[in-house]
Amino acid sequence: MKPLALTMGDPAGIGGELTLRAWLALRQTGPTFVALDDPDRLRALATRLGLDVPVRVVDAFDATGFADALPVLAVPLAAPPVPGKPDPANATAIVGAIERATRLALDGLAGAVVTNPINKAALYQAGFSYPGHTEFLAALTGATGQQIMMLASPLLRVVPVTVHASLRDSIAMLSTEMIVAAARTTAAALRRDFGLAAPRLAVAGLNPHAGEQGALGTDEQTLIAPALDRLRADGLDVSGPWPPDTMFTRTARTRYDVAICMYHDQALIPLKTLDMDNGVNVTLGLPIVRTSPDHGTAYDIAGRGIADPCSLIAALRLAGELAARRR
Amino acid sequence: MKPLALTMGDPAGIGGELTLRAWLALRQTGPTFVALDDPDRLRALATRLGLDVPVRVVDAFDATGFADALPVLAVPLAAPPVPGKPDPANATAIVGAIERATRLALDGLAGAVVTNPINKAALYQAGFSYPGHTEFLAALTGATGQQIMMLASPLLRVVPVTVHASLRDSIAMLSTEMIVAAARTTAAALRRDFGLAAPRLAVAGLNPHAGEQGALGTDEQTLIAPALDRLRADGLDVSGPWPPDTMFTRTARTRYDVAICMYHDQALIPLKTLDMDNGVNVTLGLPIVRTSPDHGTAYDIAGRGIADPCSLIAALRLAGELAARRR
Repeated sequence: MKPLALTMGDPAGIGGELTLRAWLALRQTGPTFVALDDPDRLRALATRLGLDVPVRVVDAFDATGFADALPVLAVPLAAPPVPGKPDPANATAIVGAIERATRLALDGLAGAVVTNPINKAALYQAGFSYPGHTEFLAALTGATGQQIMMLASPLLRVVPVTVHASLRDSIAMLSTEMIVAAARTTAAALRRDFGLAAPRLAVAGLNPHAGEQGALGTDEQTLIAPALDRLRADGLDVSGPWPPDTMFTRTARTRYDVAICMYHDQALIPLKTLDMDNGVNVTLGLPIVRTSPDHGTAYDIAGRGIADPCSLIAALRLAGELAARRR
Repeated sequence: MKPLALTMGDPAGIGGELTLRAWLALRQTGPTFVALDDPDRLRALATRLGLDVPVRVVDAFDATGFADALPVLAVPLAAPPVPGKPDPANATAIVGAIERATRLALDGLAGAVVTNPINKAALYQAGFSYPGHTEFLAALTGATGQQIMMLASPLLRVVPVTVHASLRDSIAMLSTEMIVAAARTTAAALRRDFGLAAPRLAVAGLNPHAGEQGALGTDEQTLIAPALDRLRADGLDVSGPWPPDTMFTRTARTRYDVAICMYHDQALIPLKTLDMDNGVNVTLGLPIVRTSPDHGTAYDIAGRGIADPCSLIAALRLAGELAARRR
C-alpha cells in the first residue's frame, strides 16, 4: 500500500493543525501519508497546541515508521505563517506542495493526492491563475475530458453538474451534454475506484416536484429526459428526473449509489445537512486519485486548535480505499 | 379545548385511511377532531382495511366521546370513491368539506382546520378555480395580506419565499419586498401561535456560498441585504444571508427558530431529508389556524392500507398546540 501525499494548503488556515490531528488519529491504523509541508512550522504548531506529534523529515517519499512520527517532505515557507492572515509570500510553497504531490502520484510513488484547503484570492495575488485546485490538478496531470466534483459521505454521494456559478448562471448553462458527461464520468469512477460493478445513478430534476408535468418548468422534459435516454442507451442504470425534495430521504437513498444534481446547493444542502463532518470531496476524471476535506481554510478559527479534523481524516481514509482499488 | 375540523381531501387518495389511523393514534391523548367526510365511505374503508374504528355521525360540530368513536359531520359523496381514480362527481363534496371546516373555524367552533390532500386537476374539471388549498382558504376567510407556507418538523422550520414556480421563474420573481413580507408574516405567527416571544430568523442566500462576496452572484447584496436592513429596522432578530449548504447542519440549526428560504427546494430539501415523516405544512397569514400533512393524495398506494399517517398525526397535534395558544 503506497503512502498518500498530503499537501500543506494555506499555512494561514487550519490545514496544519488538521494534518497533526489526522496523524494522531491514523498513526496505528493508516492509511499512511507523507505531509508536503514546512517541518519547522508543523513542529511549532504542535508545540503551541500541545499536540504530541513527532515530526520526521524525509528526503524521499517514504512513510516507513509512520506509527512513530509524522513523515514530512520539506516544502519550506518563505515567511512564518500567521493564523488567519494569508501571505502572498508563501504562494510559491503552497503551489509547490500541490505540484510535488501530483508528480509523486503520477510517478506511482504516492497512492493518491489529498489536499488541504487553499485560499484562491491570496494565490491570485501571487500570479496563480487557476479557478481552483481541480483545474490546476487537471493541467498538471494533462487530464483530458471533464473533471467532476463528487461529495461523498457514508450516508450519501452527490455530484453537482454545475458548480461554481450563481444559481441563475447555473440554470442558464445547464445542458443535456453536461448531464450526460457528468453521469458518464461518475459511473466510470464508481466502477473503477468505488468497487461498484453496476452503479445506480439517480438524476435530480431541476424544478420543484421535477416540474410537475411541465406546470413548474419544462427543463425535465427538454434537458434531463434526453440525458437519461442517452445514458440508458449506454447501458447505465439511471433513474429520474426525481423531485429534488424527496430524493434524499432515508428510504429514497437506498435506491441509488449516487445522486446527479443540477446545481451546487441541490447537491450540497442534503449532504451537509445529513453529515456535515464526514463529507469528502473527490475529484473524478483525473488520472490520479484526489480527495480533499469538504471545507475551506477557516481563517476565523485557524491556530486555535479547535478545528474539527473529521473531514480530512475521512478524506485520507477514502483516498486510501480508492487507491487500493486502483492499484 | 375546541375540536379540530379535519377535511376529507380527495376520497380517491389516502386521506380516508389516514383519518382512520389518526383517530386510532390520538383517541386517548387528543387533540380531538371531527372529520368532515362521508360516514359510509369511512365505515367501508375501515372494514376493508381491518381497522377497528367505530364511526359516530354527529349533527353538530361536537367531539364528545372522541375516545370511543370517530365523530363525523356528514358530507355525502355523489359517487362511491375508487382508490387511485379521482372522480369530478365528488368535487362538490371535497370543496364543501373545506368550506364547512373553514366556516366552523371562523365561527369559533373549531380550533383549527386540518386538510387532507386534494388533487387540483380533478377539481379544476369540476369548476374549482383556485391554485390550491391556501388561496381557497384565503378567499373563504377574507384574508388580507400575504399567505405563507411554513414547513415545520421537530428538527427544523422553513419558509420558502417563492413556492410554486419553476426555479428560473422563482429567481426572476424574488424581490426584497417578498422577503420582507414573508419574514414579517413568519415572525408574527411565531410570536402569536408558536409561543416564541423573540423569534430568531435566519435568512438564506440565493447563490452557492451566499454569492462569495459577489463572485457567485450579487442577489445577496442587491436583494437580500436590503431586506435584512428593513427587518432589523422593525426590531426583528434576523441573520444572514447564510450560505445555503451549511445553514441546516445540526449546529447551525441551534442558532435560529426558522429559516427563510429563497426557493421551494432550498426549504424542502433539508426539511424532508432530515425528517420526511413528521413535516407539517402550516399556512401563516390566515385569520384561522390551518395545518396539513406534507404530502399529496398518493393515488399509487391509496386504499391499500400502507400509507403512513405520521404527517397527518403531526399536523393534527401541531394544530392543537397552535389553537391552544391562540385561544
